[in-house]
Amino acid sequence: MGAGAIGCYYGGMLARAGREVTLIGRPQHVEAIRRAGLRLETKAFDERVRLQASTEPQAARGADLVLFSVKSQDTETAGKVLSPHLAREAAIVTMQNGVDNPERLAAVLGRDVIPGVVYVAVEMAGPGHVRHHGRSELAIGQAPASEAIAAAFREAGVPIEISDNVAGGLWAKLIVNCAYNALSAITQLPYGRLVAGAGIPAVMRDIVEECLAVARAAGVRVEGDMHKATERIAQTMPGQYSSTAQDLARGKQTEIDYLNGVVVRKGEALGVSTPVNRVLLALVKLLEAKSR
Amino acid sequence: MGAGAIGCYYGGMLARAGREVTLIGRPQHVEAIRRAGLRLETKAFDERVRLQASTEPQAARGADLVLFSVKSQDTETAGKVLSPHLAREAAIVTMQNGVDNPERLAAVLGRDVIPGVVYVAVEMAGPGHVRHHGRSELAIGQAPASEAIAAAFREAGVPIEISDNVAGGLWAKLIVNCAYNALSAITQLPYGRLVAGAGIPAVMRDIVEECLAVARAAGVRVEGDMHKATERIAQTMPGQYSSTAQDLARGKQTEIDYLNGVVVRKGEALGVSTPVNRVLLALVKLLEAKSR
Repeated sequence: MGAGAIGCYYGGMLARAGREVTLIGRPQHVEAIRRAGLRLETKAFDERVRLQASTEPQAARGADLVLFSVKSQDTETAGKVLSPHLAREAAIVTMQNGVDNPERLAAVLGRDVIPGVVYVAVEMAGPGHVRHHGRSELAIGQAPASEAIAAAFREAGVPIEISDNVAGGLWAKLIVNCAYNALSAITQLPYGRLVAGAGIPAVMRDIVEECLAVARAAGVRVEGDMHKATERIAQTMPGQYSSTAQDLARGKQTEIDYLNGVVVRKGEALGVSTPVNRVLLALVKLLEAKSR
Repeated sequence: MGAGAIGCYYGGMLARAGREVTLIGRPQHVEAIRRAGLRLETKAFDERVRLQASTEPQAARGADLVLFSVKSQDTETAGKVLSPHLAREAAIVTMQNGVDNPERLAAVLGRDVIPGVVYVAVEMAGPGHVRHHGRSELAIGQAPASEAIAAAFREAGVPIEISDNVAGGLWAKLIVNCAYNALSAITQLPYGRLVAGAGIPAVMRDIVEECLAVARAAGVRVEGDMHKATERIAQTMPGQYSSTAQDLARGKQTEIDYLNGVVVRKGEALGVSTPVNRVLLALVKLLEAKSR
């Protein structure tokens, strides 16, 4: 459900390994996939994978496993249209960025959801064409269905771990995004030039500290040194503009409400002050309103 | 010294009242003033005022009173070239925005400086042409020369107060500027649209609180309710873009180092944390570097 780059990649890998997969997505991709299969381009192979595709949520009917990979801002809408078609025994795994999708989807569906965290670099290179740049590991939460799900992914060549701390993994990704996305969006600068700016490393440390304080207050254990992890991103991707920067430049709605926005909202709810995340959120919202 | 809008306005008012005045400024204004006098345009009158004008600091030779009104970033440079021409008994009054000009100028000159704070809306409307939009009050610090200076301004129709808290007045102006200038510059939005942004009023309260904490630590007493004073600005000037926004749009160097920058530096020196001012400073610096 939500056949963007992540959905197409993992769905394609499962289908390639012989699983029966249906991608539910936008017409342009669905039409191309029906016509010529899903083009799955990786550094190791470039194949056309045959699988089902549909624009309609009822295509999820009868599924044993639903991989939920819509954008964070679409979680409620997509959950609602999906809900009536879910079999009672279906397992649902979120494969999204943002820390609160599992709880938001569970609330909409009125049932348990298995949280997932995705470590993969993929993009849609064209209609029905997913391009893989690197990594592919998954971690999913502990649930009765988790072992069977993990077995299916392992058979398909996807490394997967069953974790008691998926929330920590989702927060670690969120924190790095909070440190880069808004700053890159506001300045329209790539990560390398960003961190070379006077005062920016100190600002990034402030952002990370605020996020960690909110995570702690929320009872989430974030593992590893998040300051070092954050610094590494600019070193490994100096030319990268954040997705938020790209959305803003194209006049599209950004995911900022599920990045710095979620830190601010959870901070408010938990009594943790997040002034730096708050000013970044407010600035991106203003620029978004101005550009749309 | 520094015949921009403020220097031309107060110099012009003194000359109009019969005082002998020399404006030291840029060639375009000096040439126009030598040719046709200073055009002093207010809501009450529009006159050509005859006075001396020069591009050279030695024109300050023999002055009893030097009004120092260069931009904050030029204080040291202008002070150094002025210094050899100052009579021993000359009084020097800073008429600048920014809180640390009096101490910076005193350090360069190696002598006492009378701090001043200026409440006036003026602009240079063209070469040698200053336009007055409203107010004109001055406050200057207590010093042996202060009564004579005050008398000269009062004769010229300029309300002036001798104050034991000029620093408080300078900080009050700084705080309002810290709340608006960077936000308007980063978003290129006028004050009315700025404060209508989600989260912006809370961000402005954060900025004001940080500034007040630094002022307190610096031993400065800021009078009045700065939150209310800040809110009023957007109500009275909804269409206004900050000078920092205008500088940035024109690819000019901004005064941000003497606005949020001074709060950050003084905060660091005094052990007061200023994370919101710091992120705004860093963002404006990045945008400035990008636009120049």
